[in-house]
Amino acid sequence: MFEIVKPNEIEKKSFEIITSELGGRTFAPEIEPIVKRVIHTSADFDYADNLVFTEGAVPRALEALKHGAHIVTDTTMAMSGINKRTLAALGGEVHCFIGDEDVAQQAKERGVTRSMVSMEKAAAMEVPLIFAIGNAPTALISLCELMDRGAVSPELVIGVPVGFVNVVESKELVLEHEVPAIVARGRKGGSNVAAAIVNALLYQVRQREGF
Amino acid sequence: MFEIVKPNEIEKKSFEIITSELGGRTFAPEIEPIVKRVIHTSADFDYADNLVFTEGAVPRALEALKHGAHIVTDTTMAMSGINKRTLAALGGEVHCFIGDEDVAQQAKERGVTRSMVSMEKAAAMEVPLIFAIGNAPTALISLCELMDRGAVSPELVIGVPVGFVNVVESKELVLEHEVPAIVARGRKGGSNVAAAIVNALLYQVRQREGF
Repeated sequence: MFEIVKPNEIEKKSFEIITSELGGRTFAPEIEPIVKRVIHTSADFDYADNLVFTEGAVPRALEALKHGAHIVTDTTMAMSGINKRTLAALGGEVHCFIGDEDVAQQAKERGVTRSMVSMEKAAAMEVPLIFAIGNAPTALISLCELMDRGAVSPELVIGVPVGFVNVVESKELVLEHEVPAIVARGRKGGSNVAAAIVNALLYQVRQREGF
Repeated sequence: MFEIVKPNEIEKKSFEIITSELGGRTFAPEIEPIVKRVIHTSADFDYADNLVFTEGAVPRALEALKHGAHIVTDTTMAMSGINKRTLAALGGEVHCFIGDEDVAQQAKERGVTRSMVSMEKAAAMEVPLIFAIGNAPTALISLCELMDRGAVSPELVIGVPVGFVNVVESKELVLEHEVPAIVARGRKGGSNVAAAIVNALLYQVRQREGF
């Protein structure tokens, strides 16, 4: 019943199937592994159409990761899915402030979401930052406001929240900004998708650096 | 541009949209909140058709959770997405052994996946268990082998690995067993889906118990 495939060959074979089912579709060389990894993590070929990459976003992100950029996520789930060993080898770290006591306290006092406050906390860090937002549109909206007032200048915004309320609009808002961005247009996305995009970037840097 | 929706009303509104877009489709009362929460977590209405519930699986799982059943996941990502506060209030805990040193060591020695060994380690726990598998078909296959030889008798198997190699078959294998199961037929699924199903069960118990 089961095809005998060695553990380390499963991913290779999966990517071959994805390539085959994408038919003749072509992507820019630095974008292709990202699209394929998102499909690999979701089994959802809609992402071949949904994913939008702003001009030069991927090369800049690869360069930032190579020089130790840190990652900020909006959920512990996205943080959990990121390959921290590869990130650490490049000098990076991943942060998620959503569960912090001071964030919860401030959100309560101000009547806003913890996602919003966690973005403000992240923006205060003085290192090059890549934001990977897979859940909360309010995180993305807050991030745009922070950019508008010059409080943060991300190396990349991965905008892939999922859902039905303010999600579509929050992604379009990112695309209206000048920031380098990777966005999953529409309702789909998720913490798993956010982590997959970060990992696809990390593996490209790893391959180029030969470790 | 954005509809002003208070944080705690976003989920309510999302579920209303999902209900509306499901049109006249009806589900058994204990199944409906599970299907809707999976769609809420993925924005993917395919799950209205993909999800399969074996006879009596949900009532038994609710009863088990009420009495403090523990959850076992195959990834830290699924573990991270589960509402641990609600689970703890019922006396339960969540376990994921995939990163354990002894699991890695044994997998290497035996030339099998860490997922497989992590299931064996979980099966040895002497508490009522719900398995939530969102990533590794080998975890699901291993679990079926453990059931075949009477080494474990789960209260519920949530079989929702995602992917292209052995995934579809591993889910059908679960459905051939007598075990209570919730399965996402086909390629789709994921750690986020596994966590969403666990949470939908937990929230049903919480509502019934009135806390």
